[in-house]
Amino acid sequence: MLLPQLNDPKQLKSLSIEQLNTLAEEIRGFLIEKLSATGGHLASNLGVVELTLALHYCYNSPRDKFIFDVGHQAYVHKILTGRKDRFDSLRKQNGLCGFVKRAESEHDVWEAGHSSTSLSAAMGMAMARDFKGEDNKVVAVIGDGALTGGMAFEALNHIGHERRKLMVILNDNEMSIAPNVGAMHNYLSRIRSDRHYLRAKDEVEGLLRKIPAIGGRLAKTAERMKDRLKYMMVPGVLFEELGFTYLGPVDGHDLATMIDTFHQADNVAGPVLVHVLTTKGKGYKPAEADSYKWHGITPYKIESGQVLKAVGNPMYTEVFGETLIELGRQDERLIAVTPAMPGGSGLFPFSKEFPGRMIDVGIAEQHAATLCAALAMEGMKPVFAVYSTFMQRAYDQIVHDICRHNANVMFAIDRAGFVGADGETHQGVYDIAFMRHIPNIVLMMPKDENELRHMMKTALEYNEGPIAYRYPRVNGTGVALDQELRCLPIGSWERLRPGDDIAVLACGPMVQLAEEAADQLKREGIQVSIVNARFLKPLDGSMLQGLARAGTKMVVLEEASQAGSLGSAVLEYYSEHGLSVNVGLMGVPDIFVEHGSIKEQRQLTGLTVEELCGRIKSMRAASSYPYGKTTTSS
Amino acid sequence: MLLPQLNDPKQLKSLSIEQLNTLAEEIRGFLIEKLSATGGHLASNLGVVELTLALHYCYNSPRDKFIFDVGHQAYVHKILTGRKDRFDSLRKQNGLCGFVKRAESEHDVWEAGHSSTSLSAAMGMAMARDFKGEDNKVVAVIGDGALTGGMAFEALNHIGHERRKLMVILNDNEMSIAPNVGAMHNYLSRIRSDRHYLRAKDEVEGLLRKIPAIGGRLAKTAERMKDRLKYMMVPGVLFEELGFTYLGPVDGHDLATMIDTFHQADNVAGPVLVHVLTTKGKGYKPAEADSYKWHGITPYKIESGQVLKAVGNPMYTEVFGETLIELGRQDERLIAVTPAMPGGSGLFPFSKEFPGRMIDVGIAEQHAATLCAALAMEGMKPVFAVYSTFMQRAYDQIVHDICRHNANVMFAIDRAGFVGADGETHQGVYDIAFMRHIPNIVLMMPKDENELRHMMKTALEYNEGPIAYRYPRVNGTGVALDQELRCLPIGSWERLRPGDDIAVLACGPMVQLAEEAADQLKREGIQVSIVNARFLKPLDGSMLQGLARAGTKMVVLEEASQAGSLGSAVLEYYSEHGLSVNVGLMGVPDIFVEHGSIKEQRQLTGLTVEELCGRIKSMRAASSYPYGKTTTSS
Repeated sequence: MLLPQLNDPKQLKSLSIEQLNTLAEEIRGFLIEKLSATGGHLASNLGVVELTLALHYCYNSPRDKFIFDVGHQAYVHKILTGRKDRFDSLRKQNGLCGFVKRAESEHDVWEAGHSSTSLSAAMGMAMARDFKGEDNKVVAVIGDGALTGGMAFEALNHIGHERRKLMVILNDNEMSIAPNVGAMHNYLSRIRSDRHYLRAKDEVEGLLRKIPAIGGRLAKTAERMKDRLKYMMVPGVLFEELGFTYLGPVDGHDLATMIDTFHQADNVAGPVLVHVLTTKGKGYKPAEADSYKWHGITPYKIESGQVLKAVGNPMYTEVFGETLIELGRQDERLIAVTPAMPGGSGLFPFSKEFPGRMIDVGIAEQHAATLCAALAMEGMKPVFAVYSTFMQRAYDQIVHDICRHNANVMFAIDRAGFVGADGETHQGVYDIAFMRHIPNIVLMMPKDENELRHMMKTALEYNEGPIAYRYPRVNGTGVALDQELRCLPIGSWERLRPGDDIAVLACGPMVQLAEEAADQLKREGIQVSIVNARFLKPLDGSMLQGLARAGTKMVVLEEASQAGSLGSAVLEYYSEHGLSVNVGLMGVPDIFVEHGSIKEQRQLTGLTVEELCGRIKSMRAASSYPYGKTTTSS
Repeated sequence: MLLPQLNDPKQLKSLSIEQLNTLAEEIRGFLIEKLSATGGHLASNLGVVELTLALHYCYNSPRDKFIFDVGHQAYVHKILTGRKDRFDSLRKQNGLCGFVKRAESEHDVWEAGHSSTSLSAAMGMAMARDFKGEDNKVVAVIGDGALTGGMAFEALNHIGHERRKLMVILNDNEMSIAPNVGAMHNYLSRIRSDRHYLRAKDEVEGLLRKIPAIGGRLAKTAERMKDRLKYMMVPGVLFEELGFTYLGPVDGHDLATMIDTFHQADNVAGPVLVHVLTTKGKGYKPAEADSYKWHGITPYKIESGQVLKAVGNPMYTEVFGETLIELGRQDERLIAVTPAMPGGSGLFPFSKEFPGRMIDVGIAEQHAATLCAALAMEGMKPVFAVYSTFMQRAYDQIVHDICRHNANVMFAIDRAGFVGADGETHQGVYDIAFMRHIPNIVLMMPKDENELRHMMKTALEYNEGPIAYRYPRVNGTGVALDQELRCLPIGSWERLRPGDDIAVLACGPMVQLAEEAADQLKREGIQVSIVNARFLKPLDGSMLQGLARAGTKMVVLEEASQAGSLGSAVLEYYSEHGLSVNVGLMGVPDIFVEHGSIKEQRQLTGLTVEELCGRIKSMRAASSYPYGKTTTSS
């Protein structure tokens, strides 16, 4: 066994290719075993074992900078850089992060979570290196899926123009999370399938010498043609046209060839793109057979590949997917648009029932949003199904193309609130704050999966502009689902229980938390009123006026950025209407919340029954609320 | 004269090519004359006269959809679709919009202002057409500059994959606003310069037949080579690889050829890209000679081409540009990054003094932001110089790459607040609301250009994370500039004048407005206190506490979205600290504010001395501020 003794990537340099191959198998075994207990991104990491070994063999991290796009495929890098003993804590609170993490190791130089940032990062690091007169290598590893994100192209365009020395490794496994789509993908597939016809440059030049000279009017053209042929018969002309030297395609599981190719790349002056073909899930049959399912996985049984699923109520995502089918039957204008998340967003059943009505645009949130605007303006009813955190990429398109056009786009914002193990790059806590100030939009969040269904119906029937419903990455409450779907009045809140002492305004799963707190306080004789603030925009003015008239103190409770979200909207409302109301805020504080369970993330940020009870009691105890005097409530 | 009789684009169809050319000259004369009085986007519109004529000649708007990227080059389209008599009101309040505007005409089907959205729009319209079983044409006109924006590539990738029928016209004038940069630009330039060597497909096939058969091991390769050559000698292989049929390049001032090419494009089944070469400023010598200066222009003298400049204090932008040079001398790590706005952002003087330290990445805000993150993480001091409205494109990168990494990136946010004639797509009123909730960032806005200089120094010396200063598109106050730059304590506000009655918390140019109101009210015996709330994050807690202790009522005045900006932050602060303070909000209401002068835009939204005086008086008159009772202040 080589792995147990491995603590520093420098140790790799003294190993033979044979030993490196042995080590690769040991690492695969390690990953398959460890992840069977913790879950994690198994398939992508099994695909890059040799690639990561080759990088650490050829280069000197951390002096040379490795930038992993998305950063979920850095487990092997973590194993090789002294973190293998921490894998039992993978993606757990205070444990090893599932992504690259600078706080963990000097070998982690660039963090991500969202895709397509690695080329910009590599360019910045290469520029800084040149400004400082240093000579380290900069290597970005990017998947073919991530390459379709627009910012990756922006970076290619800049890198190819400036021609600084840096290396891009295109890790082509024909998948992002879902199978890839798009013309770039088709192009890469042609290279894959043509690779036995394509030839290295010197071979092409030999071939060209066999073409006799052509005279007459076309002589110059023919000459030019030969000139162009020198690189046109070489694969990767698209990248060559953009200013890169293209090398490959090479087998990403063939260590010797990859190492040779990296050495070859080192001798190129400007930017190099090395096209590496890998197999997701390599070495573990169940994952190779269904790399989509095994992209990110919960714990599983190694022998059978049986995935251990937590038993529970259906997820909001599932209820969304099923309800969308019902609505799709009612209205044939309904189409779903997803940026590479057909499975995660629960859209597969819909796409099976309505082929052609689910549009997967690949990792391309900006395009997806603007596409929806145009579809809506031409009379369709598009639903943009997207995770809250990835919707951040489309902020400008939401402002400029959807809301300014007042287009009838529906947003199904999944993973709103804490997301658990994916951690800080994936938290869905900003969408209220970054959408609430945009004119024309309606924002909703359901208290349970049954209300989600009514909101979906409400959105479909609403024809006055953009409308969004956001829902969390948790199981539903298990409530019975109404068969008949109905429209909620826009801007209407729901008083769930009366109470004289204090009101809690909450949305989404925080409503259940408020219910629990109210039950607990009731036993102490405190009557808490609960309002389901299901519209985040517009607010329910008449309910807010009523609460103010009654002199009710209130707490706004939300699993969203405390700055700028629902609580903030309530404060603005009262200010605008000249009403003085004692409003306490409980939301996500001004920090990035790291990985852990959703429960732990709520505890960390004080979104718990205990904290809510404490807050209610202290606000209640503050008998007066004088101008300019601190009360005991804070 | 043909132009005076022209009221409907259908009339074009009966004209001869000769008449169309005459009309083109008349339109040029019309534009040069009208814009000499109003200003506007002269050079880009002079460049597309024939192109727009050819489109309306070949197709049937509005049944066929014309989508103009950015939409600033649609003046000719407006002239041809019955709006020529409104050009005296161009870009004025209630006048003709400088961009495509649906409310103006049924021929305007897609609005923009930001670049690179047209391909997504075209795809959406083509999809909707196919879903509805209709057969209209969809044509997107996109400049070579806009093509480098990432979302344009996302759309190309999707269009090339789906292969629906639509036409992309690449209007290649070698400029966005500034001369274009990037590998795509280089690629297009090669096509331009190679076009005499490149040949149409049939000619290439003839040429290929002259190559004798090659036997042996390489036979298959040679065969394949011939096969590939069929389109490789044709220009535009990059677009062909992405699934488009490429036609061109054609001279965009040669009507007959363009019309022929469009007819040819109509016979292609899938997506077509027609590469049209145009000259910005065509037909007006001063504009041809310096199309950069003449991209967007103020009124000018037609004969001399002399631009009539308003006399006034230096713009904030100029002070920024000059101060950046001073700072660049002090710190060689300082570099400026701009997404295609080197001139608009005032960076030319800096780039002259420090060649290589101004990085123009082209229209690529996402890449620019992440590039800055990486530069900062490697020890450089990048300043991301960007307009508030365009920064919207980089929201996710600001969250995910800059703030989450806590990278020492400086933001110079220009055009913060109202922008005047560019109107609703360009208003810089959201950046506080979309940045304030992001952890780690410091946000500033100076009350005058002298304070801007100190803020720039403050940002440079600050090494604890991202820090931004935002400033308006107006002339400075003319205040004397301190020669010695100093650092402002982070989070410190400035009490500009004492007063017992009420306090106005304002930032940026709103401070001057508050001063005027205070002067006016002083004559009526009302003493208004003014606070320069120059840090939007973090707030000045001790000043807020002091105001609360003193029982001061206050108005927060800002030229920014009232939802989620400074006023909202103040309300949150008092709520979090359990303080009851009577805070009134004066900001930009929940609407998109159309084109006009900045003064008119402030009037429209109530950001005037009169409104402020009125608000102060009514808040002052409301003697009590009882819980749950409406006061007279709203």
